[in-house]
Amino acid sequence: MTGTLRGLGVGPGDPELITLKAVRLLRAAPVVAYPLPEAGESLARAIAAPYLAAGRREIPIPIPIGTGGAPLEAAYDRGAEAVAGELEAGRDVVFLCEGDPLFYGSFVYLSERLAGRFPVETVPGVTSVAACAAALGAALAVRDEVFVVLPATLDAARLAARLGGADAAAILKVGRHFAKVRGVLERAGLAGRARYVEHATLPAERVLALDKVDPAAVPYFSMVLVGGRRGGTT
Amino acid sequence: MTGTLRGLGVGPGDPELITLKAVRLLRAAPVVAYPLPEAGESLARAIAAPYLAAGRREIPIPIPIGTGGAPLEAAYDRGAEAVAGELEAGRDVVFLCEGDPLFYGSFVYLSERLAGRFPVETVPGVTSVAACAAALGAALAVRDEVFVVLPATLDAARLAARLGGADAAAILKVGRHFAKVRGVLERAGLAGRARYVEHATLPAERVLALDKVDPAAVPYFSMVLVGGRRGGTT
Repeated sequence: MTGTLRGLGVGPGDPELITLKAVRLLRAAPVVAYPLPEAGESLARAIAAPYLAAGRREIPIPIPIGTGGAPLEAAYDRGAEAVAGELEAGRDVVFLCEGDPLFYGSFVYLSERLAGRFPVETVPGVTSVAACAAALGAALAVRDEVFVVLPATLDAARLAARLGGADAAAILKVGRHFAKVRGVLERAGLAGRARYVEHATLPAERVLALDKVDPAAVPYFSMVLVGGRRGGTT
Repeated sequence: MTGTLRGLGVGPGDPELITLKAVRLLRAAPVVAYPLPEAGESLARAIAAPYLAAGRREIPIPIPIGTGGAPLEAAYDRGAEAVAGELEAGRDVVFLCEGDPLFYGSFVYLSERLAGRFPVETVPGVTSVAACAAALGAALAVRDEVFVVLPATLDAARLAARLGGADAAAILKVGRHFAKVRGVLERAGLAGRARYVEHATLPAERVLALDKVDPAAVPYFSMVLVGGRRGGTT
């Protein structure tokens, strides 16, 4: 009997925005794995902390920041190997993910390595996009609107093109890309409909108009939302 | 002292996929409102049922199905009036929403009518999109991918155009639009990367390849997901 690997969405930050199912599984989990950014802390681990079982084993998976490609794949090769050892010994493993495991999350890097050999499940969670919309109190999209999610890492031309075909948008992982994002939105005439949100649902949560943001002080966990016709952000 | 209106995301269907915060607020809520489709039941009410306080007052808001415009606005005018009466009397009101209140939900219709007069908050929930991805066990999007959400009510040309600029997509509210959606995906060469999901996280959950779906039997609560490069659906 091998163990089951579960990707567990722990929500956007507020430990109360975790699901009952995630709490139940955390309390019963003998092994807890999570990505650990180099030179950083794991937000997912911090969110889950109140619910971890006494005596659980922890597998932090060190992740090189900002790089994709071979270093990232190698990090997950090593992480998957450690997780596989637990699963082979018959112990269930939960993999903690901020927000939702399959929405710009890293669970796929683990699941694609292990799904052939072990049972794999996903427990969905509240995304940062839903959390930022709640912070604004503004609809993301309604009825027949088109909603697009854009990583801020895209170049300005691609961002502008994709915004052009949408009624509403979320621009993720703004961080050091803020000035580029603001420029794109200003040229598209969308800056007035956009709002900047950082640390949504955490005590440090802030919502700002774009012209009030200091581009030098934008954290990784930040987002720009562009409201649709009923967005109510203006 | 007036009451506070809270839009409460109750998640995609499984009552265990509700957040701790939503459960806490439901258990304390003296008044519970929800949209009630004509000739239908309220899924949001069914999800919340295990957590409702004894002795709460309920305000179902009858909603004309499939129509926007004046009939829908009039329905929410009447609903907002009933809710306002409770808030004026100092009672908090929670408004139940399937999934997330601000992601293609109806909370905005109530909040835009009442936000000027009463405190309004939103509690985010797990969306049907995250639930369907979990059912598939496939990533919605990773890293620098563009993810687009498209209501199936759009015409074929607009669906095709918006899919063209995205790496991955969720097509919502498929229902009687399934044949059109499948046609668009086939012509775009995307049918093999797409999966159909109905009743995600409920006992009736089904995941099917598009060519296995009977277009005459597609329920309203269904979705087509088109996976990105790491989608793993093929």
